[in-house]
Amino acid sequence: MPDRLPDRLPDRLPDRLPDRPPGRAARPLRKSELHASVSDPVLDTMTFLNEITSRYPEAISFAPGRPYDGFFDSEQIFGHLRRYLDHLAEQGSSPRQVRTAMYQYGPTAGQIREIIADSLRADENIDVPAESIVVTVGAQEAMLLVLRALISGPDDVLLVSSPCYVGITGAARLLDVAVTPVDERDDGFSCADLEAAIRSERARGRRPRAFYVVPDHSNPSGATLGPRARSELLELAGRHGILVLEDSPYRLVSPGRRHPALKSMDQGHTVVHIGSFSKTVFPGARVGFVVADQPVVDDSGRTGLLADELAKIKSMVTVNTSSLSQAAVAGALLAADGRVSELNTAAAAYYGDAMAATLRELDRHLPAKRRAALEVHWNEPTGGFFLTLRVPFRTDNAALIRSAQDFGVIWTPMSYFHPGGGGPHGIRLSTSYLTPAQITEGTARLARFIEAQSGH
Amino acid sequence: MPDRLPDRLPDRLPDRLPDRPPGRAARPLRKSELHASVSDPVLDTMTFLNEITSRYPEAISFAPGRPYDGFFDSEQIFGHLRRYLDHLAEQGSSPRQVRTAMYQYGPTAGQIREIIADSLRADENIDVPAESIVVTVGAQEAMLLVLRALISGPDDVLLVSSPCYVGITGAARLLDVAVTPVDERDDGFSCADLEAAIRSERARGRRPRAFYVVPDHSNPSGATLGPRARSELLELAGRHGILVLEDSPYRLVSPGRRHPALKSMDQGHTVVHIGSFSKTVFPGARVGFVVADQPVVDDSGRTGLLADELAKIKSMVTVNTSSLSQAAVAGALLAADGRVSELNTAAAAYYGDAMAATLRELDRHLPAKRRAALEVHWNEPTGGFFLTLRVPFRTDNAALIRSAQDFGVIWTPMSYFHPGGGGPHGIRLSTSYLTPAQITEGTARLARFIEAQSGH
Repeated sequence: MPDRLPDRLPDRLPDRLPDRPPGRAARPLRKSELHASVSDPVLDTMTFLNEITSRYPEAISFAPGRPYDGFFDSEQIFGHLRRYLDHLAEQGSSPRQVRTAMYQYGPTAGQIREIIADSLRADENIDVPAESIVVTVGAQEAMLLVLRALISGPDDVLLVSSPCYVGITGAARLLDVAVTPVDERDDGFSCADLEAAIRSERARGRRPRAFYVVPDHSNPSGATLGPRARSELLELAGRHGILVLEDSPYRLVSPGRRHPALKSMDQGHTVVHIGSFSKTVFPGARVGFVVADQPVVDDSGRTGLLADELAKIKSMVTVNTSSLSQAAVAGALLAADGRVSELNTAAAAYYGDAMAATLRELDRHLPAKRRAALEVHWNEPTGGFFLTLRVPFRTDNAALIRSAQDFGVIWTPMSYFHPGGGGPHGIRLSTSYLTPAQITEGTARLARFIEAQSGH
Repeated sequence: MPDRLPDRLPDRLPDRLPDRPPGRAARPLRKSELHASVSDPVLDTMTFLNEITSRYPEAISFAPGRPYDGFFDSEQIFGHLRRYLDHLAEQGSSPRQVRTAMYQYGPTAGQIREIIADSLRADENIDVPAESIVVTVGAQEAMLLVLRALISGPDDVLLVSSPCYVGITGAARLLDVAVTPVDERDDGFSCADLEAAIRSERARGRRPRAFYVVPDHSNPSGATLGPRARSELLELAGRHGILVLEDSPYRLVSPGRRHPALKSMDQGHTVVHIGSFSKTVFPGARVGFVVADQPVVDDSGRTGLLADELAKIKSMVTVNTSSLSQAAVAGALLAADGRVSELNTAAAAYYGDAMAATLRELDRHLPAKRRAALEVHWNEPTGGFFLTLRVPFRTDNAALIRSAQDFGVIWTPMSYFHPGGGGPHGIRLSTSYLTPAQITEGTARLARFIEAQSGH
């Protein structure tokens, strides 16, 4: 799950109109005439965050939800590719077949589906046929494909657990898909709230098609669904005939025991599982996947899989995922006996330590009594990249500028993640990208900012 | 520009409903409830073509528009990647910066824009700032981005030169974009017809936004716009305030002199140029790009580039293009002094020979007098991958089955490429993927099929 924070500002020409030959008076395009998605306020907020980051380069930034790249070495890529090519040869491919696999247009649904299916069985107890998998250009393309397949008209609605990852709301915006947020409570997601939202949408004549959720260490809130909520969610979705879109990029880079993935509990083909190798292998590869083993029946009674329909849509988006990227990801997996979890033992420990350090330092600077007095709260995720704070002041862009300028610390306003509005006092901290020293110094700065801002 | 013909049939589960736990009666998804794009007849025709190809493996197929892979060696990939990494180091990147460039999420608009801008200047006399380029996951994603940006409501229309590449109509279908075909005449595209279509759409209350055309060696017809038609098209588009979407994947893999690219003649920011490295480097990389230097003015009067808006949309589709793939493409270009044309000298000669051989063999089997008697015609492209035949019988799926089964030769019905219907007597031949021996034998078979089918 990417975070839309490039290292630097988008390259942009100086504001000028281009030269035109004399006598030609063609008018420039007006932004208001372009599709509404390019004016999505989420994009402006991300641009704003980029500007802040670039204007205050000395500030410590808890904003970007990027993986830590200290484990990576560019030379690894060569090893990964070589291993996958060797694997193809060992599996009986001739040099010519290997050449075609790397060179040509590939199967739209992907060429490493067996390897992914094996890893899902080994890591996640998710047992699905390779044919139910479509390899995608990151989880982002998977979201777009699933939304496009499921939403066929203006009355179809996507429900999302809110606060919500911007990738899914962005994809919805692109396709003019209506999104209805189901707000998380303080103690997390509530099935009763989801059911109420389903009923309310139906009463308005709309058709809820799916519910999007990050069950483990959610981006942005850091919340995790408990085992009971998982069972209830599946039961509820099955009963109402909606699909659950499970997006879980942080599971295998988090330490300790995991709750079962929704897809591993799914007896009724209720869950579409969206996967990403951006955190577990590397983001630059841009490889994700979707598991869509739902049967689809056409008018003549023939049954296929939802994955087949997603592949058709993919043929109109990217044709197929880069063979090079697929090879690099497969090579990395093969190096760890096909287990993503194995590959990420050190990374999971690193991220777990970063999260624990952040929580420990926050507690040191704002111990329980002090934060009770200030009315400051935060959650305590056991994994993932994110935690959230609630503070007694507005965490708007003005507050963010003060924080960066006067205190040297950057964070993300939670309001960015509320598609229906909300989160006015929330702060998202990302702990994945910083060094231990930056975490120590950054939390100290953040505590000073919060103290000052709270007026005490 | 890809051709949707995988080497093999899509993997597909046997037609069965999955096991369900007792008492669970969740119904399968109905295809008719999914988005209409998955029921696009073009997809069915492509599936049909795949089935034919797989059912008659001994048939010689003039169907797939794939590049010839005989020039390729998997080991080249390692060299390309190494060269790009060295280039980054030579440009002053530290090992850590190189690592970040390969590992992390990259700039949405791409990291090899300067290299592409340089090649466009050197190869095509297209002089645009790197900031006007967005690197995409193949030309297909570029088409999707441009359509999404330009089409903002139900009255917006895309005009296409017809017969037409299925990638653009597929992308339009995905976004529910109305497409109006402007039929090519026997002697090619006519500006008068385009102008009539623009006026007619406007009279219906619709807003033509852009005209899509493959000016050089078009897929599927093989037609090329002459120099005068190019000037007229630009003048017309400028006068009517519509953009021209120029898609030209075959220019630099064709022999001999080229007419100027529309974008190189563009004085008024009228042309959006869509590029592909699938034919010139390799399809598996999935790297294309779009040049969109059109100014866009927002409500507050600030001017940016259309490329900036396309990048925003891309952030909701694929986030960024694989760094690995970009590195491989850039490495290949750098090996040829940054010139795509240089890189493809041998390939262009090969494709030119294949086209010439096909035309020569057709003429040998169906000489002028004979084909006049049969009422068979074909065009004589000087480059590209495709030519078209017109025959006196219906070139429908039944004819294709007879051709494959009884004559051992496969081709593509031109009706597949007519978004508004048409092409009932047309055949597309692709000459790019076959060996000289296959071309010789395939044209002989085709001539026998045409003779038999014409009832003489």
